[in-house]
Amino acid sequence: MDYQHYFAKRIADLKSEGRYRVFADLERQCGRFPVARNYRDGQVHEVTVWCSNDYLGMGQHPEVLAAAKEAVERCGAGAGGTRNISGTNHYHVLLEQELASWCDKEASLLFTSGYVANDTTLSTLASTIPGCVVFSDELNHNSMIEGIRHSKAPKHIWRHNDPESLDELLSAYPKETPKLVAFESVYSMDGDIAPIAEICDVAEAHNAMTYLDEVHAAGMYGVSGSGVAERDGVRDRITIIQATLAKAVGVVGGYIAASAALVDYVRSFGPGFIFSSSMPPMVAAAALASVKVLRKHPEIRDRHQERAATTKRRLAEAGIPVMPSVSHIVPVMVGNAALCKQASDLLLNKHDIYVQPINYPTVPVGTERLRITPTPLHTDEMLDHLVKSFVSVWDELELHKVKAAAE
Amino acid sequence: MDYQHYFAKRIADLKSEGRYRVFADLERQCGRFPVARNYRDGQVHEVTVWCSNDYLGMGQHPEVLAAAKEAVERCGAGAGGTRNISGTNHYHVLLEQELASWCDKEASLLFTSGYVANDTTLSTLASTIPGCVVFSDELNHNSMIEGIRHSKAPKHIWRHNDPESLDELLSAYPKETPKLVAFESVYSMDGDIAPIAEICDVAEAHNAMTYLDEVHAAGMYGVSGSGVAERDGVRDRITIIQATLAKAVGVVGGYIAASAALVDYVRSFGPGFIFSSSMPPMVAAAALASVKVLRKHPEIRDRHQERAATTKRRLAEAGIPVMPSVSHIVPVMVGNAALCKQASDLLLNKHDIYVQPINYPTVPVGTERLRITPTPLHTDEMLDHLVKSFVSVWDELELHKVKAAAE
Ligand SMILES: Cc1ncc(COP(=O)(O)O)c(C=O)c1O
Ligand SMILES: Cc1ncc(COP(=O)(O)O)c(C=O)c1O
Repeated sequence: MDYQHYFAKRIADLKSEGRYRVFADLERQCGRFPVARNYRDGQVHEVTVWCSNDYLGMGQHPEVLAAAKEAVERCGAGAGGTRNISGTNHYHVLLEQELASWCDKEASLLFTSGYVANDTTLSTLASTIPGCVVFSDELNHNSMIEGIRHSKAPKHIWRHNDPESLDELLSAYPKETPKLVAFESVYSMDGDIAPIAEICDVAEAHNAMTYLDEVHAAGMYGVSGSGVAERDGVRDRITIIQATLAKAVGVVGGYIAASAALVDYVRSFGPGFIFSSSMPPMVAAAALASVKVLRKHPEIRDRHQERAATTKRRLAEAGIPVMPSVSHIVPVMVGNAALCKQASDLLLNKHDIYVQPINYPTVPVGTERLRITPTPLHTDEMLDHLVKSFVSVWDELELHKVKAAAE
Repeated sequence: MDYQHYFAKRIADLKSEGRYRVFADLERQCGRFPVARNYRDGQVHEVTVWCSNDYLGMGQHPEVLAAAKEAVERCGAGAGGTRNISGTNHYHVLLEQELASWCDKEASLLFTSGYVANDTTLSTLASTIPGCVVFSDELNHNSMIEGIRHSKAPKHIWRHNDPESLDELLSAYPKETPKLVAFESVYSMDGDIAPIAEICDVAEAHNAMTYLDEVHAAGMYGVSGSGVAERDGVRDRITIIQATLAKAVGVVGGYIAASAALVDYVRSFGPGFIFSSSMPPMVAAAALASVKVLRKHPEIRDRHQERAATTKRRLAEAGIPVMPSVSHIVPVMVGNAALCKQASDLLLNKHDIYVQPINYPTVPVGTERLRITPTPLHTDEMLDHLVKSFVSVWDELELHKVKAAAE
């Protein structure tokens, strides 16, 4: 086999299908978010970022930056080991306490990313609890799918956000069989939200554990911001809450929050936790500061929801096909990989607006979209410019418009 | 099933087997490495860390800290997205160029950790190259094992560091079958080093790709420090070099370096790369500064090797059973989980020396050990104190001593 030839061929295929990914080379500018510098064609352009998952702009919050810098000065750049072998820093301990209290759980556990949190926790639980069966929402994120797959446990896929479908599948097993129901609160590509209470009703009736990914909700929902489970008053019914520190929290890393025994179990048996260097003190310190700010300031969340609602309304009024999202996410359907890329390129090159095209494997083929994430820091002027630019691009590419409709 | 009861029972079992892990709660102190503060029993103690994987103390190097702080001020705390969706910062681009050049390869790719680099790259290559067969050294790290397992590709385990065993297994396949040979350079628990050139001879004869984990070598071997493949002059014979930014580089993160086509392939198809938020600019900037320092300063490596050799010699002269390591790692065999923990506790509580006990699953049951990692910053006084303390602990616990022997 000619390996290099094989790799080159597969890359050429991606290009001809219009789904070869080109990463925008950005330089975030502290204090100016969502404005960033964009390196392209040998030049540096100033652009407005409309697709960041730093949903609340916490990545540039003064208290977060001060905490990061203080930790660098105090403890240096890295943790120096895995959690077990010299890599537990006092900031990890404090952050785990803070996250547990935030989620109203007994304990929490840090991972290097939300991806690793999902992969490790799901694969560890489902592979080591004898006879465990997993029930997974059909639109779960790749990190959950991989974790479930890696466990080799039997699994069933229930229809998206459909407690009846879940109930049907669970009913095939006796109550004694260990079961794990895995789902998300906010689904980040469509912007819909799971009926958590109803899913808990079903899971409890069958004595199943519940695993909730709040990656796109943590920091943004509930009075203290811990997620949709808090908003809906159902945190005590969720066995394991999982989320990231890389999106609304604005830094990097992942966590689970659960009972002390469960957390100690994953801490003791999860390979992706045990065998990997821990996050630097500066990362833990910055995340700790961010969570503390988020808990105290619900008005950040109010402003965030207002910006998202206004963006949806304004785009819809202009005939842009906004998808029916009930969250802070504003997806606009294009439905074709090449056109989606062209629209994104035009927005960037002509209008200095950066919205990355979302294509397969992140969304199904034929549902390629532009996914807009308004933050509390996007101004009315930026929004005016966004709407005008979308209309111009839609006209230029003769994309499908819709009759002005309410959200 | 009573889930909480099950978790509690498994934890109780670990405790009764003496292999329940208690993490030392440390606070690294910038400028004073390897000295750290240790929170225990409600008090703060000052200890000397002798088991850090910040092998060269780069985690507190002034240029590294300055770079981290500058990036925090310039770009904020987090990257704000996955690499594809607004999360590529200019520091990522610069760091990937630097790592490629350091490893003398066409391209490199960053991951959130060395663990994810191994898991994602190995599983992606082995699962997507049609008919690929994997050949794995029997002592490979968990992250490689998991990556290979996740690929579901057929695999064969060759005897540790034994090219003949590899040759035998490869011979069962025709030359056209795609093959991937995976191994490490420095094995971190025993401190032995792979015969890379001989392994390449065998792999080339069978037209197999080679995958080399340099996690415990990057920064420490070769004139410019890129690893043992550089020291041995065989970098061009290795298809994929993998390593971490969390150990000798002193920060966090992982990478591969390889041909441009291969890197683009993993970038385009690797789920653990695609679906996870990228490392913060401050992390990439710190790692970039560290690699630049490491490339220019071979004397750090000379001092490191001298410290390791001296530690081995001094301990051996005192009758402590140092294992026959040819690298910078100084493992001392105890052979029993409970005794190993007792020795570590005594060192910490009586002598303010922190050496974490290494037990299953990190090493096989019955080979529990204390693993010492001398750095260029450990002084002669610290070493005197280490040797005296080990002898005192060995006497107190009546552990096995050896006749003074040369290393
Ligand atoms: C639903 C969901 N879960 C988990 C992750 C992974 O989290 P992280 O980016 O911290 O790896 C993501 C995306 O990044 C996600 O969208
Ligand atoms: C050989 C080897 N490979 C990979 C890893 C994982 O690297 P990281 O700590 O960056 O996740 C480790 C240990 O941490 C290791 O010892």
